[in-house]
Amino acid sequence: MTTNANIFAKRRDKLNSILEQQGLDAIALNAGPAQTYFTDLHFHLMERPVVVFLAPKQDPVIVLPDFEKAKTDVMKGLRVVTYGEDPTKWQDSFNQGAKLLGNLNRIGVEGLRMRVMELRYLETAFPTAKFEQAESLLGQLRMHKDEAEIASMQRAVEIAEGALEATIAKVKVGMTEREVSGILIQQLYANGCDPELPFLPIIAAGANSANPHATVSDRKILKGDLLLFDWGASVDGYFSDLTRTFAIGEVEPEFKRIYEVVKLANQAGRDAAKPGAPCSSVDDGAREAIEDSGYGKYFTHRTGHGLGLEAHEEPYMRAGNSMILEPGMTFTVEPGIYLDGRGGVRIEDNVVITQSGARTLSSFPRELRVIG
Amino acid sequence: MTTNANIFAKRRDKLNSILEQQGLDAIALNAGPAQTYFTDLHFHLMERPVVVFLAPKQDPVIVLPDFEKAKTDVMKGLRVVTYGEDPTKWQDSFNQGAKLLGNLNRIGVEGLRMRVMELRYLETAFPTAKFEQAESLLGQLRMHKDEAEIASMQRAVEIAEGALEATIAKVKVGMTEREVSGILIQQLYANGCDPELPFLPIIAAGANSANPHATVSDRKILKGDLLLFDWGASVDGYFSDLTRTFAIGEVEPEFKRIYEVVKLANQAGRDAAKPGAPCSSVDDGAREAIEDSGYGKYFTHRTGHGLGLEAHEEPYMRAGNSMILEPGMTFTVEPGIYLDGRGGVRIEDNVVITQSGARTLSSFPRELRVIG
Repeated sequence: MTTNANIFAKRRDKLNSILEQQGLDAIALNAGPAQTYFTDLHFHLMERPVVVFLAPKQDPVIVLPDFEKAKTDVMKGLRVVTYGEDPTKWQDSFNQGAKLLGNLNRIGVEGLRMRVMELRYLETAFPTAKFEQAESLLGQLRMHKDEAEIASMQRAVEIAEGALEATIAKVKVGMTEREVSGILIQQLYANGCDPELPFLPIIAAGANSANPHATVSDRKILKGDLLLFDWGASVDGYFSDLTRTFAIGEVEPEFKRIYEVVKLANQAGRDAAKPGAPCSSVDDGAREAIEDSGYGKYFTHRTGHGLGLEAHEEPYMRAGNSMILEPGMTFTVEPGIYLDGRGGVRIEDNVVITQSGARTLSSFPRELRVIG
Repeated sequence: MTTNANIFAKRRDKLNSILEQQGLDAIALNAGPAQTYFTDLHFHLMERPVVVFLAPKQDPVIVLPDFEKAKTDVMKGLRVVTYGEDPTKWQDSFNQGAKLLGNLNRIGVEGLRMRVMELRYLETAFPTAKFEQAESLLGQLRMHKDEAEIASMQRAVEIAEGALEATIAKVKVGMTEREVSGILIQQLYANGCDPELPFLPIIAAGANSANPHATVSDRKILKGDLLLFDWGASVDGYFSDLTRTFAIGEVEPEFKRIYEVVKLANQAGRDAAKPGAPCSSVDDGAREAIEDSGYGKYFTHRTGHGLGLEAHEEPYMRAGNSMILEPGMTFTVEPGIYLDGRGGVRIEDNVVITQSGARTLSSFPRELRVIG
């Protein structure tokens, strides 16, 4: 991420315009990607609350632990309220923050990030305010990536691809999913991934590959298995998120058939991605390819999700989503077919909407490869 | 974690007794450690809600995505309500879950885990219910670790210690914090750490070591620096969390002085840990050692926190915490002295309260070592 303070001030200016348009008096951001996006502050969500208040026509306010105060030096003009280690005093600090901000009636929060703990402090500090989920408002800004953000994502894709290539060279029949996971994570770091992975890689062998959100287990990789990798890397806080499925030796004919169907669906989803089209068209494109093959009921999830500072963010590529794709939007296209108890195939790529269509950031081969 | 379903059923029985004692009608658990602790279900907190309802005298209810349903098979008697990919329908599924549960007036939630998104669904599904933060109630059970849990933590300590020993052998003057971080994470996996790290290791060189929650940066390690590692490993979901500080070549005399003070404070904190003593006594013990040396104002945080399925959990070793230590409680002892702009020292160990005192799980040497 750039350290140019202007970028963050400009993002706050844009946010304040949107807040004013929508009649919101402020937004309260918990530690996390949106807080970082608007402030260049880096905090993790812990048991001690760190809340930033952004409101039009006044300087931001932060409430945070005493001992983290030094981290706020990067942000000029920030009004800082701190608290000590005794949680019974934390409400006082939120009240003090509220006093600095003055009367606020409608306050936006992130429904996926703000917890009941912080909400209760805020409700007490602003007893007459309404707290509204404001993800879509923040998404309006965060969804449109600039060139520097896209360059970070491109690099995160390249690191992930290099790590997978190095990993599959080491995969052998009889290894467990967990062992392969260790190799892949080591390779991600060796290839230049930032310390924070976007998510724990999924390594799913055999029947486990039929579970779209499988957890790494001690299952051994066997001949005839499908072996699915869903993995990504991070660069300057920006993520990649890819999936490839391999054959361990000779696999049954139906596995080869569904592989080809998913490959077509992946291509169809990416082909449907262009400025002016609704998000649903990406899902429709991929889903039709699978339905035409008769496997429609085995494609059990949406086709993709936005990607950036979070592994899942707006826009979502799902049936019925009328949100219009615009240049700079970045997301996954990841159709799959899951044969319960036997095996599954998913092929996932990362794309960015351009002025005229979409560019696929990932280039790892999509042909069925036999490994192990 | 054991896969014996009885363990989880027994934990739920105990929880239900506590709920009845406290007049709570149910507890709603979001994806995360407490949900896993009581159910053996493993979900991550994502944009799709996964909420488990536990209520006395009836079977548990879960609301989760359709495509994750297969993961619920591990739990007998669970009543399952699923939803599809369209968020506008999710409320219906929560309403359906509420109907199964019947009339509930007081519902406990985890303030640190339940988000505004889930809270709003619950408020609509149970329009007359009150939602109360119930961490301390859950903590009553989770704080007392059994032998299997402690054995996992012991192993997590050993893996972390092995990884650090291998890492410091590779540290050289001129490397960046980020490079050292990559080496340490690779070594954690090579030593048998589970895929999910308890937290990103802190590698803080020079002035960065004076920030208790430093983030890994591209700062180079230089002669005369203090180099601080705050790192841990995970085994079966259970965590270790350790800190050691090293000297890069010859360091200034005051750094050696504060090192010895922190070492004494670490010992004093561990010595104060015993059944029947309040948590505050651990903080008092460590803090007095530092105050006696004249560095009291440079020890800016509490002395420790509980440790288990979460990196920070109850009980907290802080001034004024009158909670009584009991056998099976596991926590960190981690005093530090931070000289702003120059350098800091922290020495952190993991202890478990026994019948007669406390056992330190970690054995990595605490003498000041010169490396690099």
